[in-house]
Amino acid sequence: MVSDNKKSVFEVEFKVRDYECDMAHVVNNAAYLNYLEHARHELLESLGLKFGELARDGINLVVTRIEADFRNSLVSGDCFVVRTSLVRNGRIRLQFNQSIHRKPDDRLMLTAVVTGAALNARGRPEMPDVVVKALDGLSG
Amino acid sequence: MVSDNKKSVFEVEFKVRDYECDMAHVVNNAAYLNYLEHARHELLESLGLKFGELARDGINLVVTRIEADFRNSLVSGDCFVVRTSLVRNGRIRLQFNQSIHRKPDDRLMLTAVVTGAALNARGRPEMPDVVVKALDGLSG
Amino acid sequence: MVSDNKKSVFEVEFKVRDYECDMAHVVNNAAYLNYLEHARHELLESLGLKFGELARDGINLVVTRIEADFRNSLVSGDCFVVRTSLVRNGRIRLQFNQSIHRKPDDRLMLTAVVTGAALNARGRPEMPDVVVKALDGLSG
Amino acid sequence: MVSDNKKSVFEVEFKVRDYECDMAHVVNNAAYLNYLEHARHELLESLGLKFGELARDGINLVVTRIEADFRNSLVSGDCFVVRTSLVRNGRIRLQFNQSIHRKPDDRLMLTAVVTGAALNARGRPEMPDVVVKALDGLSG
Repeated sequence: MVSDNKKSVFEVEFKVRDYECDMAHVVNNAAYLNYLEHARHELLESLGLKFGELARDGINLVVTRIEADFRNSLVSGDCFVVRTSLVRNGRIRLQFNQSIHRKPDDRLMLTAVVTGAALNARGRPEMPDVVVKALDGLSG
Repeated sequence: MVSDNKKSVFEVEFKVRDYECDMAHVVNNAAYLNYLEHARHELLESLGLKFGELARDGINLVVTRIEADFRNSLVSGDCFVVRTSLVRNGRIRLQFNQSIHRKPDDRLMLTAVVTGAALNARGRPEMPDVVVKALDGLSG
Repeated sequence: MVSDNKKSVFEVEFKVRDYECDMAHVVNNAAYLNYLEHARHELLESLGLKFGELARDGINLVVTRIEADFRNSLVSGDCFVVRTSLVRNGRIRLQFNQSIHRKPDDRLMLTAVVTGAALNARGRPEMPDVVVKALDGLSG
Repeated sequence: MVSDNKKSVFEVEFKVRDYECDMAHVVNNAAYLNYLEHARHELLESLGLKFGELARDGINLVVTRIEADFRNSLVSGDCFVVRTSLVRNGRIRLQFNQSIHRKPDDRLMLTAVVTGAALNARGRPEMPDVVVKALDGLSG
């Protein structure tokens, strides 16, 4: 069975902070990755998975690949939403499909596909039981 | 004619700073984008193009697409080099092929293809003369 | 006359983002300055002063001094509020008294006094009319 | 006996990275704290103390107070040096006296006094033996 919070698109709202903007008066490219990570961690937390606690237990969630298309630039003062959906990708990978939309006009600013894996204490990819259980029923 | 600094791979050396590491004790994914950007800007500066000065003149160099594969994790104390080569991609795009190698064993940590464009003061893609001239002879 | 938003303490709510936490699993010291800056800029925006627009007009708001006491550490998952009050400090300086309180127990995490000045296009301290007018009636 | 690397001023050289500059085209105030932290950690590493390893062992080095005076602004392209000296401050505190000087004219850009403490696994201030031994002979 697929629970709602796994199927549905997970949304987190943000407002641009001025320190995230660079000399060109737009949000710096790396700051978008910060937004995307925070959105992924909020989604995982909604499934009961906390990045910090997992790290303490020797399970490191790492990003293995990022594809991001920057469509339009966020600027100082903008409010926006990050939308994330999560699917399994093979036996040991998670795939996050993410997009950023400006508020209130819902203009598409960025799309990204972020692939992640869990590494065990020896640095090897391994999907630990606690993650498998949390994602139980996830499509993909 | 292709000048040497355009053909050759441009190298910038770094050392991981602890504030770039996250709770999993590895460099956070967004920090790699910071490294890659600094390397690109150093390359551009070697061609006479300064990001900040261009921005003041109404020319914004922006990233339009990033593909990055995270192969291995940099950790606290690591020294590494970012290698960048630049090619033209169509009439109005620049393509940076970048990789990060740990020192001194030259282990490959990340590969990335970063596509950029220049936006004029109206926010439209346009390759201004100053950029065209600096990149004159660049292969692609 | 002193308007309410000048007299009262200005509040901005945040949630810790995991990329702001370091290897010790607490929010890194520099990230607190990011929080404090965002809170100051939100306060200034409530008075009609936008940092980015002022910069475009040749007026740079800069920090000249920071005193911060770190009382307790914010950790992953914490929600908190930054409280800011603004007073004039002499003819050309602004003083922001700021504190960070964890939610929901209101525990004091940090206190700070941040002094700022406006620099004109020649880099000289000068309180421009637009700022004076926005702060009209501010105590201090 | 006081060893040379404890008595002498410890220097780390940097170059401004463009992502550290904000819309006012100067280095953002929080980025200076990043520079200062990296310089402190390099000093500690020269004494055999690694922040990350200490954290893994349950010893968290934390900042308890920062006083920083921003004298002049670093801008894109600037090279600079952070100078740090370390003294004991009471039984359980370390005091770092730090300054930032632009290269090559040695212009003073920032002075700071940063106070730190070691917290044990229960979050209590405690100067562990490994730190005491590393700092043996330190003046203050």
